[in-house]
Amino acid sequence: MTDTGSLDTEPDGPDLQSGTLNPAENEADCFHDECGVFGIFGKQDAAAVVTLGLHALQHRGQEAAGIVSFNGQQFSVERHVGLIGDTFTKRSVMDRLPGDRAIGHTRYSTTGGEGLRNVQPFFAEFAGGGFAIAHNGNITNALTVQRELQQRGSIFASTSDTETILHLIAVSEKSRIVPKFIDAITRLEGAYSLVGLSEKKMIGARDPLGIRPLCIGDLDGAYILASETCALDIIGARFVREVEPGEVVVITGKGIESHFPFEKQPPRLCIFEYVYFARPDSTIDNRNVYDSRKRIGEELAKECPVDADVIIPVPDSGTPAAIGFAQQANLPFELGIIRNHYVGRTFIAPSSAIRHMGVKLKLNPNKSMIEGKRVVLVDDSIVRGTTSQKIVQLVREAGAREVHMRIASPPTMSSCFYGVDTPEKAQLLASRMSVDAMADFIRVDSLGFVSIDGLYRAVREPGRNAECPQFCDACFTGEYPTTLTDQQDQGNVRSLSLLANNG
Amino acid sequence: MTDTGSLDTEPDGPDLQSGTLNPAENEADCFHDECGVFGIFGKQDAAAVVTLGLHALQHRGQEAAGIVSFNGQQFSVERHVGLIGDTFTKRSVMDRLPGDRAIGHTRYSTTGGEGLRNVQPFFAEFAGGGFAIAHNGNITNALTVQRELQQRGSIFASTSDTETILHLIAVSEKSRIVPKFIDAITRLEGAYSLVGLSEKKMIGARDPLGIRPLCIGDLDGAYILASETCALDIIGARFVREVEPGEVVVITGKGIESHFPFEKQPPRLCIFEYVYFARPDSTIDNRNVYDSRKRIGEELAKECPVDADVIIPVPDSGTPAAIGFAQQANLPFELGIIRNHYVGRTFIAPSSAIRHMGVKLKLNPNKSMIEGKRVVLVDDSIVRGTTSQKIVQLVREAGAREVHMRIASPPTMSSCFYGVDTPEKAQLLASRMSVDAMADFIRVDSLGFVSIDGLYRAVREPGRNAECPQFCDACFTGEYPTTLTDQQDQGNVRSLSLLANNG
Amino acid sequence: MTDTGSLDTEPDGPDLQSGTLNPAENEADCFHDECGVFGIFGKQDAAAVVTLGLHALQHRGQEAAGIVSFNGQQFSVERHVGLIGDTFTKRSVMDRLPGDRAIGHTRYSTTGGEGLRNVQPFFAEFAGGGFAIAHNGNITNALTVQRELQQRGSIFASTSDTETILHLIAVSEKSRIVPKFIDAITRLEGAYSLVGLSEKKMIGARDPLGIRPLCIGDLDGAYILASETCALDIIGARFVREVEPGEVVVITGKGIESHFPFEKQPPRLCIFEYVYFARPDSTIDNRNVYDSRKRIGEELAKECPVDADVIIPVPDSGTPAAIGFAQQANLPFELGIIRNHYVGRTFIAPSSAIRHMGVKLKLNPNKSMIEGKRVVLVDDSIVRGTTSQKIVQLVREAGAREVHMRIASPPTMSSCFYGVDTPEKAQLLASRMSVDAMADFIRVDSLGFVSIDGLYRAVREPGRNAECPQFCDACFTGEYPTTLTDQQDQGNVRSLSLLANNG
Amino acid sequence: MTDTGSLDTEPDGPDLQSGTLNPAENEADCFHDECGVFGIFGKQDAAAVVTLGLHALQHRGQEAAGIVSFNGQQFSVERHVGLIGDTFTKRSVMDRLPGDRAIGHTRYSTTGGEGLRNVQPFFAEFAGGGFAIAHNGNITNALTVQRELQQRGSIFASTSDTETILHLIAVSEKSRIVPKFIDAITRLEGAYSLVGLSEKKMIGARDPLGIRPLCIGDLDGAYILASETCALDIIGARFVREVEPGEVVVITGKGIESHFPFEKQPPRLCIFEYVYFARPDSTIDNRNVYDSRKRIGEELAKECPVDADVIIPVPDSGTPAAIGFAQQANLPFELGIIRNHYVGRTFIAPSSAIRHMGVKLKLNPNKSMIEGKRVVLVDDSIVRGTTSQKIVQLVREAGAREVHMRIASPPTMSSCFYGVDTPEKAQLLASRMSVDAMADFIRVDSLGFVSIDGLYRAVREPGRNAECPQFCDACFTGEYPTTLTDQQDQGNVRSLSLLANNG
Repeated sequence: MTDTGSLDTEPDGPDLQSGTLNPAENEADCFHDECGVFGIFGKQDAAAVVTLGLHALQHRGQEAAGIVSFNGQQFSVERHVGLIGDTFTKRSVMDRLPGDRAIGHTRYSTTGGEGLRNVQPFFAEFAGGGFAIAHNGNITNALTVQRELQQRGSIFASTSDTETILHLIAVSEKSRIVPKFIDAITRLEGAYSLVGLSEKKMIGARDPLGIRPLCIGDLDGAYILASETCALDIIGARFVREVEPGEVVVITGKGIESHFPFEKQPPRLCIFEYVYFARPDSTIDNRNVYDSRKRIGEELAKECPVDADVIIPVPDSGTPAAIGFAQQANLPFELGIIRNHYVGRTFIAPSSAIRHMGVKLKLNPNKSMIEGKRVVLVDDSIVRGTTSQKIVQLVREAGAREVHMRIASPPTMSSCFYGVDTPEKAQLLASRMSVDAMADFIRVDSLGFVSIDGLYRAVREPGRNAECPQFCDACFTGEYPTTLTDQQDQGNVRSLSLLANNG
Repeated sequence: MTDTGSLDTEPDGPDLQSGTLNPAENEADCFHDECGVFGIFGKQDAAAVVTLGLHALQHRGQEAAGIVSFNGQQFSVERHVGLIGDTFTKRSVMDRLPGDRAIGHTRYSTTGGEGLRNVQPFFAEFAGGGFAIAHNGNITNALTVQRELQQRGSIFASTSDTETILHLIAVSEKSRIVPKFIDAITRLEGAYSLVGLSEKKMIGARDPLGIRPLCIGDLDGAYILASETCALDIIGARFVREVEPGEVVVITGKGIESHFPFEKQPPRLCIFEYVYFARPDSTIDNRNVYDSRKRIGEELAKECPVDADVIIPVPDSGTPAAIGFAQQANLPFELGIIRNHYVGRTFIAPSSAIRHMGVKLKLNPNKSMIEGKRVVLVDDSIVRGTTSQKIVQLVREAGAREVHMRIASPPTMSSCFYGVDTPEKAQLLASRMSVDAMADFIRVDSLGFVSIDGLYRAVREPGRNAECPQFCDACFTGEYPTTLTDQQDQGNVRSLSLLANNG
Repeated sequence: MTDTGSLDTEPDGPDLQSGTLNPAENEADCFHDECGVFGIFGKQDAAAVVTLGLHALQHRGQEAAGIVSFNGQQFSVERHVGLIGDTFTKRSVMDRLPGDRAIGHTRYSTTGGEGLRNVQPFFAEFAGGGFAIAHNGNITNALTVQRELQQRGSIFASTSDTETILHLIAVSEKSRIVPKFIDAITRLEGAYSLVGLSEKKMIGARDPLGIRPLCIGDLDGAYILASETCALDIIGARFVREVEPGEVVVITGKGIESHFPFEKQPPRLCIFEYVYFARPDSTIDNRNVYDSRKRIGEELAKECPVDADVIIPVPDSGTPAAIGFAQQANLPFELGIIRNHYVGRTFIAPSSAIRHMGVKLKLNPNKSMIEGKRVVLVDDSIVRGTTSQKIVQLVREAGAREVHMRIASPPTMSSCFYGVDTPEKAQLLASRMSVDAMADFIRVDSLGFVSIDGLYRAVREPGRNAECPQFCDACFTGEYPTTLTDQQDQGNVRSLSLLANNG
Repeated sequence: MTDTGSLDTEPDGPDLQSGTLNPAENEADCFHDECGVFGIFGKQDAAAVVTLGLHALQHRGQEAAGIVSFNGQQFSVERHVGLIGDTFTKRSVMDRLPGDRAIGHTRYSTTGGEGLRNVQPFFAEFAGGGFAIAHNGNITNALTVQRELQQRGSIFASTSDTETILHLIAVSEKSRIVPKFIDAITRLEGAYSLVGLSEKKMIGARDPLGIRPLCIGDLDGAYILASETCALDIIGARFVREVEPGEVVVITGKGIESHFPFEKQPPRLCIFEYVYFARPDSTIDNRNVYDSRKRIGEELAKECPVDADVIIPVPDSGTPAAIGFAQQANLPFELGIIRNHYVGRTFIAPSSAIRHMGVKLKLNPNKSMIEGKRVVLVDDSIVRGTTSQKIVQLVREAGAREVHMRIASPPTMSSCFYGVDTPEKAQLLASRMSVDAMADFIRVDSLGFVSIDGLYRAVREPGRNAECPQFCDACFTGEYPTTLTDQQDQGNVRSLSLLANNG
C-alpha cells in the first residue's frame, strides 16, 4: 500500500502508473478507512475547532465532510465535497455554523453511493427535538433494519446506514433522547463509533467490541470526542481516556455521564488501525502507532531476514516499518523512491504513445541509491498486488541487482465489513495465491510477510490468543467477530438503492 | 407589478431603484407564483423534454429546478439552483437522467427555507418501490400533519410541504401506489397540482377546487402533464384537456385512467393566473391569457376613463392591459418606459453619493414620449406601492404634465395561502388605505382599479357570483375557499424548522 | 432581426429554432454592434459609475467588459468575460478599482479573436507615463499599420486594432500625451469613437466622419464620455453635447478643451444606429431612437400598405416600427409572438427525435391572436433570411390566413467594416436575390422594405442626398465613406494572428 | 526550512502556527525557487508531455503555469493559475494545445506582480514570425533595458523581465530568429535558463555562468529541454547532457546545433540547488541531489557532533541530511515530527481564543519518540528563524530533555538576485546575529551549521576555491558573480509598474 494514514498523511492512495496516467485508477489497490468523527461541547466557535479536528483526521476520509452546530436555538449544517482545508476554511462557511457545540465527520465512502445526500452528519427533527449524528464504522444489519422500517412507513433520504440509526431513534417509544439513542443502538450489529448532538447533550458511543477507535479529550474544560488522538494534538487538547467498548458517554455542561447498555465482552479493536489506518502520531489504547509500525518492521526483520545492501520504504506507508527493519537488521535505510506529493486529477494522455511510455506521476526511483544494489522494499500490505508489481518493476529498471519485498502485515485474505473499503475476497491476491506464487506475480527475488503472532507481538501482546483473539483481524484470518446479517441475507434484501444518483 | 409572467417571461420582478442599486430589493413588491410542474411518460430522452418544458415554465419559479427520471430499473435525480437554461443544459447532466419517463419542477420558494434540500421533485423508496413527486400549490394543514407523522417516528429531511405528502403515501396501509397516493391526498387541505412518478406509472392530481392549473398534452403518443399550455407549445405537443379539479389521472403505457376520490365541488381556479402569473401565450380553461389581459384593459378603460395623450405600460406585466386600454379608449399606445433586460446581481455602490443619485438600473423613461404629455400608466397590480411610487416619480421627472395610474386588477387586500409568495396583509397597500389615499401615496393625478365584476367579465363571466364565486379571488376579497388549519393553529405548531441552514 | 438594441435591451440575438436547440446558432442572423465606451473624470468611486454606464450600454456588446481606473498614483485594470451585472458587481472587484477617474468598455467582438487578451480597455506604460484606451469602431488600415510597427520592433500582445493605436502613441516622437494621441489618430482610417485616460487627463475622440456616436455628459460637475445618452440617464447625468466628428476633447480638473486636428468634412453617422443598434430611449443628434423607429414604421405603412387584420412585431427589435405601422395604417397592434427572455446555454437534444420536433426555445406564437387572421409581421431587417423563414413558419403553423412581412430598413446588401459584425456579402440574402425572390424564400404572401429615402425621411431628412449622403449607409448602398486599406491589401497582409488561442 | 524541493515534493513551505492558522503566513520563512522550464520538439501531443514534465517540476513553482504549442501553422497558448495537476489535466485544455512541439513554464513569482499577465511562456509576433519564451532565473539589468526600450516606443504588457527579452529580440536588426535571440541575450546580465519556440526551432540557452540548471533529454528521438532530470524520469526519457553555461542550443528536426556567443568563463552553478531547490531524485552535473544532501548531513555530523539519543528531521526538507547525520553519528533516525500533507487555504479562527491555542496545522511532534530524550533536529537552512523557533517549542512541549539543531547549510546572510525569492538581507537571521545569539533566539541547547568548505566537500569538491569559487554561493558569502545593474541604479529606475493590478 502506498498509504494514507502512514508517515505522511495525505490526499491519496497509490498510483504507480506504469500504464496509466490516472492517479485514481489504482486507488482500489489499498484499503481505505471510511470515516473520522469529531465533536466538542462548550467551546465558543465550536465549528472552527471541529474544522481543525477534522483536518487532522483527513487521512480517515478525504472525499467529503460535514459539520452540524447548535447555538442554543437552532442547528446549522454545512456539507461539502472536497478537502476540509478547501471547503470549511472560508469565513462565510464558519459564520453559518454558530454555536458552542458542534460535531463533524469526514468520509471516504463505503456504504451508500456518492453525492451530498450521503455526507454526514445526518440531522433529523423528532417529536422531541433535533438530533445530529456522525458515524465511523459499518452496521452489518442495516439493510435488514431498513426494510423493517420501510414496512412501517419510514422514508429514507440517503443510502447511508447512519440514517438507519436516526430512524431507529425516531421510532423508539422512549421519550427522552438518551434512552431513545440506547434503544436504537441495541438494534445494531457491526462496528460503530458514533458522535451525536441534541439540543442539550453530546453523545458518544462505541460498539460492544470497540472495533473502531473513539477517544475523549479536554480543551480548557470543554469535552471532545475524536476518532484519534492526533485530532486532540492539533488544537492542544488534553487526552482524557478512550470511550470504552460498549460505552455510551453523555456530555453536558455538567460533565460526563456513562452508560453501559450491553453485556460486557472482550474487546476486539481493529488491528489494521496500527498497520495502516491511524496516523503515526496517534496513540490508541496506550500504543503509539508509529512505534507499533517500527516494531512490526523489527519483527519482520527477525522473521524474514535477508542479505541485502539497502532498506527502502515504499513511501509513505512503508516508512516506519522500514526504519524498524533497518535498525533491527543493521542495514542502511535510504529514501530510494521519491514521492511527488503534488497530485491532481486524471492526466490526459491523448495518444496511446503517451499512455504507454510508463509515466511515473507519483513515485520515482532514485537511481543513485538503487543501481547495482540488493534492495529490500518494505511496504505495509499487499491488496491486489498490481501496485507492488509496478513498484518492483520501477526498482528493477533503476538497476537493482536483487529486489526483496517485506510486508508489515500478514497476507490480507478476507474483506472487511466494519467500515473499511476493501475489494471483494476474490480480488485479494493472498486469497488466490501462496506466498511463493505471489513472489512470482510481483516478480521479486523473495517475499516475506510478518506472521499474525509477530504482528500481535509488535503491538505488545504475547501473541494471538486463538481462543479469544485480542483484536479484530478478520482481514487476515477470516474470523469475523460479529454476525453479518445483511451478507447472509443477500437474496432477500434489496442491497442497492432504487436511486441511481441524487444531485 | 413589473412582472414575471406577463408579456415577457423573464428573470425578475421590479426594481426601480431610486434609492437602491439592488435588483433584488424590490422583489417583494410583487407576487411570485411558486412553482411549475411538468412530466412526460413514454418518450425517449424524457429528461431532455422535461428540461424544455420547465424552460417554458421558468416564469413560475426561477430559483431552482429538479428532474427525476426512470429508466426501467433505477430512478435518477438532478437538482440545481439557478435557471434551467444554465443548469440543465449540459450533456453531463442529461446523461445522468436516462429513461423514457421523467418529471420536473421549477420553483420560486414559499413554504420551506432555501437550500437544495427543498428543491423538488422529492423522491422516496417505500416498501413497495420508489416514488417521486413534484408539487405546485400549498398545503394549508402541512404542519399539523407533519406533527402527527413525527409523533409516530417519521423523519423529515426538508421543510417542504411536499415531503409531507410523500410521508403520507409511505404510511398508507394500502399496498399499491395509486390507492396509497389517494389515501395521502385525502388528508390534504389547500391547493395542489401534483405530478408523481412510480416505476410503472405517472400520476397527476389537482385539488378538489382546482386552484392551481394542470393540463394534459400529447407528443406523438407520449402523455404530458404541465402547469401551462406554453410548456406544450415549446415542444410542439398537442393540448388534450385540463386535469379536472379533484381528478387523479394515472398514465401508463396503456393510456390514461381517471379517478375522482373527492365529492364534486364547484371549481375555484385562481383568477390571478389570468392577471399576472401565467404566460400570455398560455390558455387556461379555454381562455387565452393575453386576450384576457387585454380585455381587463378594455374593462378598465370603460370603468375608469381618463382624458389623456398617451397610454404607457409598466413593462412588461402591464403591456397587454395597456394595449387593451388604448384600443378601447382610442388613445395612442407607446413604449414610454424602456426596460433593461440585462440584470445581474446586486450592484455595489461604494459611496452614499452613488446610492443617492437615483440609479435607474432597470426602467428608464423615454423622455421624448412623455415630456409635456398627460400620461396613463397601466400596471397589473399594486402590492406594497413602493414600486409604483418610484415609477410615477420617474415619469414625472421625465416631464409628464399629468400622471394617471390604471391597475388591471382590483386592490389586493389579503395574503395568499395557496402557493403564492405574498407579503403579510399589513404590508399590502390596499389593506391599509382607500383608493384616494393610495393615489396620494403614489403621487398620481388619478388612480383607478378594475372592479371585481369587471375582472370577472374580462374572463368572460357575467360577473362575480357572490353566492358561489367562480374563481378563487381571496387576495381581492379575503374569501378563502378552504380551511386554513395551520394558520388557525399557529400557537400549537412549531412553524419553523429547528434547522437554520442545511448546506 | 430579433434584436439587441431595440425595445428591450437584452442578452441575445435571434434563435427561432425550428430545427435547433442552440440559442447561439442563429446569432449570425443579425448584425451586432461591437462596443460601448464610457468614462468619467472627477467623481469619487468612478469605477462604480462606469459599471452602471456600461450596464446601460450592454446592448452594444455583452461578451466581455473591462474598466481601468486611476487613483492619483496607479492605474488599476479589471477585465472579465460575461455580463457587467455578473462580473463587475462584487465588492472585491470594485475595491480593486480605486480612484476618481475611470474608463470602461463593453464588447461584442469583431476584429481580433476571443479571449481575455482582447478585452478592452488596453493599457500601456510609455516613457512619459501610463495610458489606457477604449475603442468603439474599426480601424480599416490596422493590419497595414501593425505590419509597419512590427518591422520596427513593436510587439503585439493582442489581435485588437485598439492595441495598434496604443503603439502609434508609443512611437510618436512628441513628448506630451495629447500631441502623441493626435499624432496617432491622424495615422488611422475607418471609424472610431475613443475614450482614453492618462494620469492627468481623460481624452475623447471621434473619427472625422463621426461614424460611431459619442456624447458628453455632466454629473454634478464631473464630465462623462459615453456612447449613448441612455448611459447618462441611468445615473441621472445631464446631457451636454455630442463630441463632434473629428473632434478631440481633453478633460481635466479645469474643464474641457477641444482640438480639431482634421480638415472639416460633412459628417456620416451610421444610420443603422437608428434602425437597430442604439437603445430606443437614447437620443443621437437630437433624434430620439424610439421615435425614429416608429417613424420608419409609418413610412413603411405609407410605402408598402397591406390589407390585413393585425400588426404583429417580431419581438423585440420590430416593436417600435410595428407600433408606428399600426398607427399609420389604423390597424390593431398585437403581441402575437411571445418571447421567452430566459435564455441559457445550448440545450442538449440527445436524440434526433427531439432535435426535429421544432422546439420553440425563444419565440412562441400566440395562436389566439393569429388564427384565421391576415397578419403583418414587422421586423427591423433581414440578414441571412433564415430567422425570418422560421418565424413565418411559426406564424403559419399558428393558423394565420395570410402572412405579410414588412421590414423597417432597406435591403442589407453589403458588409460593414466600421465596427459591426456582419456576415460576408455573399451571405446577405438581399445581395443574392430580388425582393420577390426573398418573399418566396421566406414564404410570405408579400414582402416590403422601407426605401432608402423613406428611411432618411424617418430621421427627418428630406431624403438621401446622393451627392453627399448625410449618413453612412454602406450596408444598404455599398458606398463606403472611407478607404478600406486592409481590404484592398489582403494579399499582402497577414490577416490572421499566428496565435490560435491565448488562455 | 520546511521545504519544497526536498524529500517530498509538495505544495508548500513551512507553517508551524503556534500563533496563526494561516498556512501561507510563514511561507516567507524559506527560499522559493521561482521557475521550472520544459520543452519538447517532435513528439505527437507535445503539450501532454510538457504537462507531465511541468508536473515533475512543480516544486520549482506552484502558483501558475503555462504552455505554448505549435502545430505547424499556429501557436496556441494556455495559462492558468494553480497546480498543473488541477489546471492542465482536462481534455479541453489539451485539445486547445495541438502540435508536436511545445514549451512550458511553472512559476512561483518573483519579479513582476501577480496575475495572469505575468504567467509564462510569453509569446510575440515579430516581423519574421511568432516566438514563445520561458525563463528560469532573473535578469539583473531588466529595468534598465526596459527603460531604454520604452524610450524608443516599446510597450510592455507585463512586469516580467521575460518580456524584456522578447522586446530585445523584436528590436534586433538581424533577420533570422537565432541571430536575433543571440543579439538579445548578449544584452542581458544575471541568471537565466531559457527555452524558446519559433515556428521551426526550439532554442535553449543558459547564462555564461550557468547559474540555473538546464538539461537535454531524448524521448524516442524527440529532444527535450528541462530544468531538472526528474522531469525526464517521469516520462521515461533518456538524459543526454547538460546545456553548458553560455551555450545556445538550437533544436530542429535535424538535430541539435550549438552556439557559444560568450567568452568562456568558469561556471558558477547555484549551490543551493543541492541544498534545497532541486528534487532529491534529480542529478545535476553528475551529482545526485539526495546523495549530496546525505553527504552534507555526514559533514555536519563530523563538524558539529553532539551527544544525543535520536536524530529527527524537520520534514520534509531536512530528511536526507538527517539520514546522513544519523548514519555518520551512528544514532537512531526517527520520524519524530509528523507532517500533515493535506493543506488548504487559510483556516478561519473566529475568536482570539482559538488563534491562541497553538494550533498545529502542519507539523505534530510524535511525543513517544521525543519524551525524555536528547533530540537533534536537522533542517536544511534557517531564514528568518521564526519557523525554527516554533518547531523547537513544539519539540520541547513534547517532552524533549535537550534540543539541538543542526543545519545542512552555512548561515544564509545575503539576498539572492538570481531568480530566488528571498527576504531582504535585514530579515535574514544570520545577517543580524552570531550563531550563539541565533541559538538563544530559537531556544536550542546547541546550534551548528555546516561550514562552507564542508558544503563544498559534500558536493565532492576539495573545498571552496576562494580565488575562483566553483559555485554561486552569494546567499552564504555575499559574493555576487555578476554585476547587479538595477540594484545599483535604483534611484533612476522606476522599479514598480504604474499598474496596480491587471485582471
